[in-house]
Amino acid sequence: MTPPLLQTGPLRIGPLRIGIAGLGTVGVGVVRLLRANADLIAARAGRPLDVVAVSARERRRERGIDVSDLRWHDDPLSLAHDPAVDVVVELIGGAEGVARRLVEAALQAGRPVVTANKALIAVHGAELAATAEARRTPLAFEAAVAGGIPVIKAIREGLAADRLTRVGGILNGTCNYILTAMRESRRDFAPILAEAQALGYAEADPSTDVDGIDAAHKLAILAALAFGRPVDFASVHVEGIRHVAALDIRFAAELGYRIKLLGIAQLTEAGVEARVHPCLVPVDTPIALVEGVFNAVFAEGDFVGRLMLEGRGAGAGPTASAVVADLIDIARGSLIPVWGANAEQLSRIVSVPITQRSGDYYLRLHVLDRPGVIAEIAAVLRDCGVSLKSMLQHAPSGAGPVSGPGAPPDDQSVPIVLVTHRTGEASMRRALELIAALDVVLERPNMIRIEAG
Amino acid sequence: MTPPLLQTGPLRIGPLRIGIAGLGTVGVGVVRLLRANADLIAARAGRPLDVVAVSARERRRERGIDVSDLRWHDDPLSLAHDPAVDVVVELIGGAEGVARRLVEAALQAGRPVVTANKALIAVHGAELAATAEARRTPLAFEAAVAGGIPVIKAIREGLAADRLTRVGGILNGTCNYILTAMRESRRDFAPILAEAQALGYAEADPSTDVDGIDAAHKLAILAALAFGRPVDFASVHVEGIRHVAALDIRFAAELGYRIKLLGIAQLTEAGVEARVHPCLVPVDTPIALVEGVFNAVFAEGDFVGRLMLEGRGAGAGPTASAVVADLIDIARGSLIPVWGANAEQLSRIVSVPITQRSGDYYLRLHVLDRPGVIAEIAAVLRDCGVSLKSMLQHAPSGAGPVSGPGAPPDDQSVPIVLVTHRTGEASMRRALELIAALDVVLERPNMIRIEAG
Repeated sequence: MTPPLLQTGPLRIGPLRIGIAGLGTVGVGVVRLLRANADLIAARAGRPLDVVAVSARERRRERGIDVSDLRWHDDPLSLAHDPAVDVVVELIGGAEGVARRLVEAALQAGRPVVTANKALIAVHGAELAATAEARRTPLAFEAAVAGGIPVIKAIREGLAADRLTRVGGILNGTCNYILTAMRESRRDFAPILAEAQALGYAEADPSTDVDGIDAAHKLAILAALAFGRPVDFASVHVEGIRHVAALDIRFAAELGYRIKLLGIAQLTEAGVEARVHPCLVPVDTPIALVEGVFNAVFAEGDFVGRLMLEGRGAGAGPTASAVVADLIDIARGSLIPVWGANAEQLSRIVSVPITQRSGDYYLRLHVLDRPGVIAEIAAVLRDCGVSLKSMLQHAPSGAGPVSGPGAPPDDQSVPIVLVTHRTGEASMRRALELIAALDVVLERPNMIRIEAG
Repeated sequence: MTPPLLQTGPLRIGPLRIGIAGLGTVGVGVVRLLRANADLIAARAGRPLDVVAVSARERRRERGIDVSDLRWHDDPLSLAHDPAVDVVVELIGGAEGVARRLVEAALQAGRPVVTANKALIAVHGAELAATAEARRTPLAFEAAVAGGIPVIKAIREGLAADRLTRVGGILNGTCNYILTAMRESRRDFAPILAEAQALGYAEADPSTDVDGIDAAHKLAILAALAFGRPVDFASVHVEGIRHVAALDIRFAAELGYRIKLLGIAQLTEAGVEARVHPCLVPVDTPIALVEGVFNAVFAEGDFVGRLMLEGRGAGAGPTASAVVADLIDIARGSLIPVWGANAEQLSRIVSVPITQRSGDYYLRLHVLDRPGVIAEIAAVLRDCGVSLKSMLQHAPSGAGPVSGPGAPPDDQSVPIVLVTHRTGEASMRRALELIAALDVVLERPNMIRIEAG
């Protein structure tokens, strides 16, 4: 029999006193939300939630909210020990540095922490959970994954009875916005990224988003919750969307797919496979239709079947909604183990590298338009044990098939798209290397995995 | 300042001992789930969840599970007082009778209750919550709405910071199955219902489902949670799908819509509008694409924006998943006010009748195919202040427009479909009465409301 190691928090009378570190868009959003909905939040939490202290880099900056009556901390770390603060909200960001030190110090001091910091939780979530567990202190991070969509709660509590086999989704709104805009405008990655930056949908340094790192942080968190094991960011395979071309999106459409950056974690016989990469997903699946800045998370369990949750994954409002929901849980006295179970009861299931993946593949080649090319490529695939499902050959104008054994030789190059039957990732990669080395292949082939959605 | 009236439950050592009343599909599913996933459930709950007692009508019936080592109660009511039982799971069903008496007795005895009984919660949820609150005892009903999709938790906890303005969705899988099958097979309601009954997707007496009552129970529960007010089933406008014809589904498709039975509750300036009826929803909205037995729930909040949750809304597995998730919450010591806040802090906002609705309408008429008909109908609409957006006139064969001032008179009848601009329900109903009374109108017109999805 398992004793109830984690119990609910102590009875508190009076308001929950909140200290916020970081007054960027999200921090200001949290203050605004707590003020705008103070009445209903107090009713739902059973007590008022009061912001009493803040810390940010510049005290005098105009933020559109009045913080003059709040306790000001030049050093965010001092929030962890301010006797007037019951809960610390960390909205500074980053896996290391002051954010990490603040969260550690607050938990060490037995002070509950709410954070939106996916990098911190993905990278250091196991140690932080150990501290939280030892101090019987809540560490909450609903805002870290999929913004306002309560996916952490849904998976950790709502699906607590299920053995989950698969979890993931569209976890980065910037990438989904870019891919949607590329499809709609038929333009390539670079100009759309520049536009997204101008609109504020992408950062000046976009690499955390477009290289898949942000999605991988979120996937690592979801996988840990879904499979009840310590968070393991290092084992997530990460690929971004820079190599997706407008041409790929058009070919995908012709084949009945959309291209999405998905995070997917699944339980296989060998262990947990977790990966972030662009995918072709059938156009008639719910996930294919999640467009623009929206996020969607799916989960599959042995009793519940498949669920999908969809909504706004970023922005001040949705993120503040998640942060304050966590604060209300804490005000209500809720204390749930950070990863769904105590550390000693988490699973030791291993991670499996992406080379163990098995599935269909999309391959776009740029080849010399002359007889025998297809035969050469087909021979390589055959030798690697890769079986073809379909092939598209179009001139760049899209004017229809041109190449092939019967066509007259010329010096023009053409794109060829190959779709494979179910193949192991390792075989596919070997074939890719061999094909890239062929004289008739003009550029490194572009390979995108196909997923059922 | 609001004192924390409701606090978390007492520290419990040892397993949570469960008594289940009702061993139908769901009851058996709950026992199966608790046994199949006992290890991970114990890890997540912090203690084992043990079924120790059951009650059902026939003790000896073959159910595919062994209950011979459990305490047997011929009278389910005695579960409420069995000293070996910590929590009562009510899976008998029905708003009155033994289910109601059992839940009341258990709560009176200070014993937590988990139920999947939407009718009971929709009709008597306010008094039951008062008892639960007075005894500081959990009353949980995640399984009552949308099966395995954790919508109660998402709305009551995940969106606790938000002022919700709209909630609803596809809440009845039987109706959604029938409407999907009608669309796909182009057949009418009656044969599809018969088929659904044969397949077990519809009950022998289908009226609770197809007349919208089940969806209305669920909508009443969602509305109470979303708007923080006592549950008010009586104020929900209820219409089923019997009057939807295959012809309507075809016309809707032509106009760019699908027909869905939606429950919609929204906050208007006058109060809460809650209604269940068939709707035309644009075919490119996420809700239009939820097909078959799947359910979907949407919610809109002032900070979070719009969310949608989708999954299996019924069946032994999904329902058991929700029941056991509630049991895990109880095992963890969670105690959240039944309607999201204590009774005294619930809102007194009034209900608004459907006659206050304002929106677009679809109207299908069966008229004599002769000159002047359109003019007569248009005159009635004009006199009622109803403005037309579009019109379809097809012969029953779908062979194109036939009627109209310039067409030759004949005795054939034709369907005409009218789509209005935004109109008040009261004006629309007046127009409907006047149109139905016209000599050239052969049947009562079929009116279906149009919603944005």
